[in-house]
Amino acid sequence: MSQDRNKQTLRIGICGLGTVGGGTYHLLNSKKTEITRRVGMDLDIVHVATRHPAPELAKSGIRVSTNVFDVANDPEVDILVELIGGYEPALELVLLAIANGKNVVTANKALIAVHGNTIFEAARKKGVVVSYESAVAGGIPIIKALREGLAANSIQWLAGIINGTSNYILTEMGENNRDFPDVLKEAQQLGYAEADPTFDVEGIDAAHKLAILASNAFGIALQFERVFTEGISHITTGDIAYAEELGYRIKHLGITRVTELGIELRVHPTLVSEQALIANVNGVMNAVVVKGDSAGSTLYYGAGAGAEATASSVVADIIDIARAGRDETQGASIPPLAFTALRNDLKILDITEIESEYYLRISARDRVGVFAKISQVLTHYGINIEAVIQKEPHGSDLEKGIVPIVLLTSRINEAAMDVAIAALEALEEVDGQIMRIRVEQFDGENG
Amino acid sequence: MSQDRNKQTLRIGICGLGTVGGGTYHLLNSKKTEITRRVGMDLDIVHVATRHPAPELAKSGIRVSTNVFDVANDPEVDILVELIGGYEPALELVLLAIANGKNVVTANKALIAVHGNTIFEAARKKGVVVSYESAVAGGIPIIKALREGLAANSIQWLAGIINGTSNYILTEMGENNRDFPDVLKEAQQLGYAEADPTFDVEGIDAAHKLAILASNAFGIALQFERVFTEGISHITTGDIAYAEELGYRIKHLGITRVTELGIELRVHPTLVSEQALIANVNGVMNAVVVKGDSAGSTLYYGAGAGAEATASSVVADIIDIARAGRDETQGASIPPLAFTALRNDLKILDITEIESEYYLRISARDRVGVFAKISQVLTHYGINIEAVIQKEPHGSDLEKGIVPIVLLTSRINEAAMDVAIAALEALEEVDGQIMRIRVEQFDGENG
Repeated sequence: MSQDRNKQTLRIGICGLGTVGGGTYHLLNSKKTEITRRVGMDLDIVHVATRHPAPELAKSGIRVSTNVFDVANDPEVDILVELIGGYEPALELVLLAIANGKNVVTANKALIAVHGNTIFEAARKKGVVVSYESAVAGGIPIIKALREGLAANSIQWLAGIINGTSNYILTEMGENNRDFPDVLKEAQQLGYAEADPTFDVEGIDAAHKLAILASNAFGIALQFERVFTEGISHITTGDIAYAEELGYRIKHLGITRVTELGIELRVHPTLVSEQALIANVNGVMNAVVVKGDSAGSTLYYGAGAGAEATASSVVADIIDIARAGRDETQGASIPPLAFTALRNDLKILDITEIESEYYLRISARDRVGVFAKISQVLTHYGINIEAVIQKEPHGSDLEKGIVPIVLLTSRINEAAMDVAIAALEALEEVDGQIMRIRVEQFDGENG
Repeated sequence: MSQDRNKQTLRIGICGLGTVGGGTYHLLNSKKTEITRRVGMDLDIVHVATRHPAPELAKSGIRVSTNVFDVANDPEVDILVELIGGYEPALELVLLAIANGKNVVTANKALIAVHGNTIFEAARKKGVVVSYESAVAGGIPIIKALREGLAANSIQWLAGIINGTSNYILTEMGENNRDFPDVLKEAQQLGYAEADPTFDVEGIDAAHKLAILASNAFGIALQFERVFTEGISHITTGDIAYAEELGYRIKHLGITRVTELGIELRVHPTLVSEQALIANVNGVMNAVVVKGDSAGSTLYYGAGAGAEATASSVVADIIDIARAGRDETQGASIPPLAFTALRNDLKILDITEIESEYYLRISARDRVGVFAKISQVLTHYGINIEAVIQKEPHGSDLEKGIVPIVLLTSRINEAAMDVAIAALEALEEVDGQIMRIRVEQFDGENG
């Protein structure tokens, strides 16, 4: 690492001047005096790489490249800030910067979730720091909370609303009784959702972030490919209304938990008690609840995206590196995944191995004894019914003689629930597929 | 600072084995393996001072003293953990530890709020670290969030529920329609409130914590003596019910905000929109909302007290010091109050200089034209009425011919409101004192 303890300037190279890159550039410039007052040294942008350099940049005195690798090879850059996104050339860029002894700050959740193990190993060997606070939950300092603030805790579980787009859509569906496609279209028009919304609404973006959170919570290698992922496109306004009637909200959560069997790692729509603080996190906002054995439940809330909020965390990472002021022989003092030695004795559980309570919505034929038959099947598989809603049929359901039956079940293994649902769907009284949404009680805490 | 970079053990001395001290002792022992896995070195308790040593302690191999100064003078102690509380001998103890080149971790909010400036100056000169995460909001890493996670932000304001006892009392009063004295008595029986509850219910404890938060938010010297403090003992269940009817909850908040005039620094009951996340923080739980110019509003929630939650933050501070692994010449990398140079150009405003919206409850004589007269007085002082509740009188009010009128006003300077209230109280239609509670809108954000 090229930073010198006696040097009063830390030299920054920014790769990418898109939304977050532009925000970071602006933040470092506009807050120069205040940051120096905090850090006791100057943070200077000395090199910027962007495909389309604005004419003003040339006048700034900052070196400007169109090739990001020029920044990684610049001997006068102490910290390379990777904000180009995607896997390539971001991976090659970050590895080159590390090889050249530079610290790296990145907001690239996909890169860290998928290639983090490789990157952190390279950084460890070279004794440099790779920071990524901005990759998860934008402006919320959740990585810092997990790695440092809660370092005295064994983390038991965490659960987060870590994708603003899907939270915005679910909030709008619930508050204004609007269908998913309708709200999605609006979110795209507002710029909250991409033209291809798959990453957000199918939970892939949340899965990237959850993989990173889980590694920091439990000290395990990044295992994005093991995250169970279910999106929100099949959720109906009816489900949201039934959930509300039962005292719940539907949130798209990333959940990870350590159990005796291994580690749960899953992103899916979830019923959460309306009393829980996280159930009241609305719109594009993010929040993460962390359950530690000493601190209990703590919750972290804020903007999960946006140029300014994300840049806030990018610059906080830069300030951390500046304040640590470490020399080349020292290496990172805070391990990239919270622990100096990762555990490999904890396997990631398959979704069939988890336990949960369930919300089931069953389209049943409106006949005498149908409810008795359904409850008989559930009882057969050891599943208790904790709550029921059965309403008069209406609309096309009425014509077809279909009545919706909504159930909350007791806690049961998911594999057992799969079998029970198959048995229910095989009943001639049941029409089509059963809607299944997992329910989380968060140990009764006000998380 | 006596800590050696090559040494694989950090030696800890704990002063005080009360609730938090006992919790810290237990946590460091029970989590020894996991902490070593996080830090890469051993954290060993080598010396404990307690007035009443338990017989087991002697068998532990740890040096045991009844005099806390023995720990400060022990050359084999790297970090002194001050958990005796109070001003003296805590101040003398901490200053001696610093003079002897030891790092200090303390949970003592009163000590930091009142003597922090002296302590931090001594630590700066000696190049040691004094950490106090556990002094504010127990297990919530709020000091870390302010000093590090949000370091790229100019903080605009923060507001917190930072005393669990008063939040528990207000929650109980609201949820179960019970009067203050009744709930206080129960809180004392449950151990949530002290025999002398003044510190908690009059806001002194919250004022200690708010002074610390404000210094970290704005980079100003600690000025506990300048905090405006108003307790909750005058709040009635009627006020809570009226507030609810208007869409608000009453919370005992610490609020600090930088304005063009200076810094607001105040603890008082506050009406907060029921939509705000902080309005839904109930029971003994704490939460702090921080508004930064880049990150926007972020909120931090968790247990604000208790042996385990507080010990979680004490040990996190110890781990931070261990991970930093600094040598004697380096000194603190993270300034104790977030900035390397404090500002002295920001004066703390008197409560009469703030601006706020207000809740007013007026006991008016049930006569024709009384409301017109009240609104005439308010209009005269430039105060608009934003909402009104006027109910039929009942009980003793009915006999006396008194009707309660509840108003929400527009934003106005507090000095002007003082004059307006005096004018209202001078009306012969107004009976007794007017109840005034400040209202915060938090800029319309979902904080």
